[in-house]
Amino acid sequence: MLFRQLFEPDSSTYSYLVACPETGECAIIDPVLDTVERDLSVLQAHNLKLTYTIDTHIHADHLSGARRLKGLAGSKIAYPAIDELPCADIGLQEGEVFKIGNIELHPLFTPGHTDHHHAYLIHTPVHSMLFSGDALMIDGVGRTDFQSGDSETLYNSIQQKFFSLPDETLVYPCHDYENRHISSIAQEKERNKHIGGKSLEEFVKIMDNLDLPYPRKIDFAVPGNSECGQCPDNIPEKYQGPCARYDQG
Amino acid sequence: MLFRQLFEPDSSTYSYLVACPETGECAIIDPVLDTVERDLSVLQAHNLKLTYTIDTHIHADHLSGARRLKGLAGSKIAYPAIDELPCADIGLQEGEVFKIGNIELHPLFTPGHTDHHHAYLIHTPVHSMLFSGDALMIDGVGRTDFQSGDSETLYNSIQQKFFSLPDETLVYPCHDYENRHISSIAQEKERNKHIGGKSLEEFVKIMDNLDLPYPRKIDFAVPGNSECGQCPDNIPEKYQGPCARYDQG
Repeated sequence: MLFRQLFEPDSSTYSYLVACPETGECAIIDPVLDTVERDLSVLQAHNLKLTYTIDTHIHADHLSGARRLKGLAGSKIAYPAIDELPCADIGLQEGEVFKIGNIELHPLFTPGHTDHHHAYLIHTPVHSMLFSGDALMIDGVGRTDFQSGDSETLYNSIQQKFFSLPDETLVYPCHDYENRHISSIAQEKERNKHIGGKSLEEFVKIMDNLDLPYPRKIDFAVPGNSECGQCPDNIPEKYQGPCARYDQG
Repeated sequence: MLFRQLFEPDSSTYSYLVACPETGECAIIDPVLDTVERDLSVLQAHNLKLTYTIDTHIHADHLSGARRLKGLAGSKIAYPAIDELPCADIGLQEGEVFKIGNIELHPLFTPGHTDHHHAYLIHTPVHSMLFSGDALMIDGVGRTDFQSGDSETLYNSIQQKFFSLPDETLVYPCHDYENRHISSIAQEKERNKHIGGKSLEEFVKIMDNLDLPYPRKIDFAVPGNSECGQCPDNIPEKYQGPCARYDQG
């Protein structure tokens, strides 16, 4: 399996390219509109044609690259089935393995950051790789104070679906704001400042007191991502760059 | 390949179990004397018989478990060949692949923390795994102020042998003092506070000013590890615990 971790600096988003060398099929998990051209270059450099984009949830901090990549590369758009997005070609749900060539992707229903959030798990011959989305990040968790978030639900998702995985499981989050790239389940159980070794009550209290600023892109990102990364009409001028670079598909 | 990351808390040392499922052969990289019993339990739990112990260098902060594991489990002791240890059964060197069953271990000569230090690289179908020893740690490097250490040499080892590896290469260090378990080459290139983005001159200055305390176990660990983890005569009473638990092999 070919694997690349890709970064979009404005929203500090990690996208992940996974490709099956036997079939040439490949997917990008959580692509970002701003870096679609970079993603296409990476695909070209590896002589790959994008088969799927796969989102973990309806993001509030960036526009998904799913729609544009479909237009430019012909990829099919996969989202959690529970999102019921008319723009999605494929609905993913826990218990149903999704195949990218010979790679088996296991969706994990992990609500709490949003009520429909899914993480994805791939087992390799040595490691399990957890694409934890915005549920579990490195030394933190996704905020729960907007867009159907709920701290108790997130706590249970992480404890039950993530912290039950083997200690050596590789954790690849959707974001990091301090240039960290990777963690493991053991590391997050031991030292995650929000949830590592914390009770539900402690966690809820921590989340209630994060005092985070209003998400700067949420007002256009959520409606745009509800259409798989459509550039919405109300996008402020300063964020129009990636929307202006192509005609809308 | 079976892989386990194991921890010894007194010296904050990570040991790594790698096992070939096809042949049953396995190795522990950098075993610690204090946790030999735990290591044997892990081996038993996986129905494994230890084939090799493999040290990255002559440690100054803990006694190696190599000699005791040989006595109790029959494993062969591997050290960098350049150490020329009479107690070692196998000498490892860069350019000569060492096989643990079907697993290929690539020694990398990476002096600087000590003049004979070797790291080890294993390529899996998805990732490369770098066992970086005390050369590169998470957000830091091994100290260079004793036991044949040299900052300029360490800088060149890390830049040439590690930072030339693919960004996604998994970094498994010999120690972490803050419960971090894993990093990647990209992460260390970007944010390692000692060497990430630093010039040789900046690195040497940083290393010259670390102002670290005298290593508390060095006076017995270095002579003991020069005999592959023999308990030396001069061991202070407070550190005798693991030495007292068995007769010396």
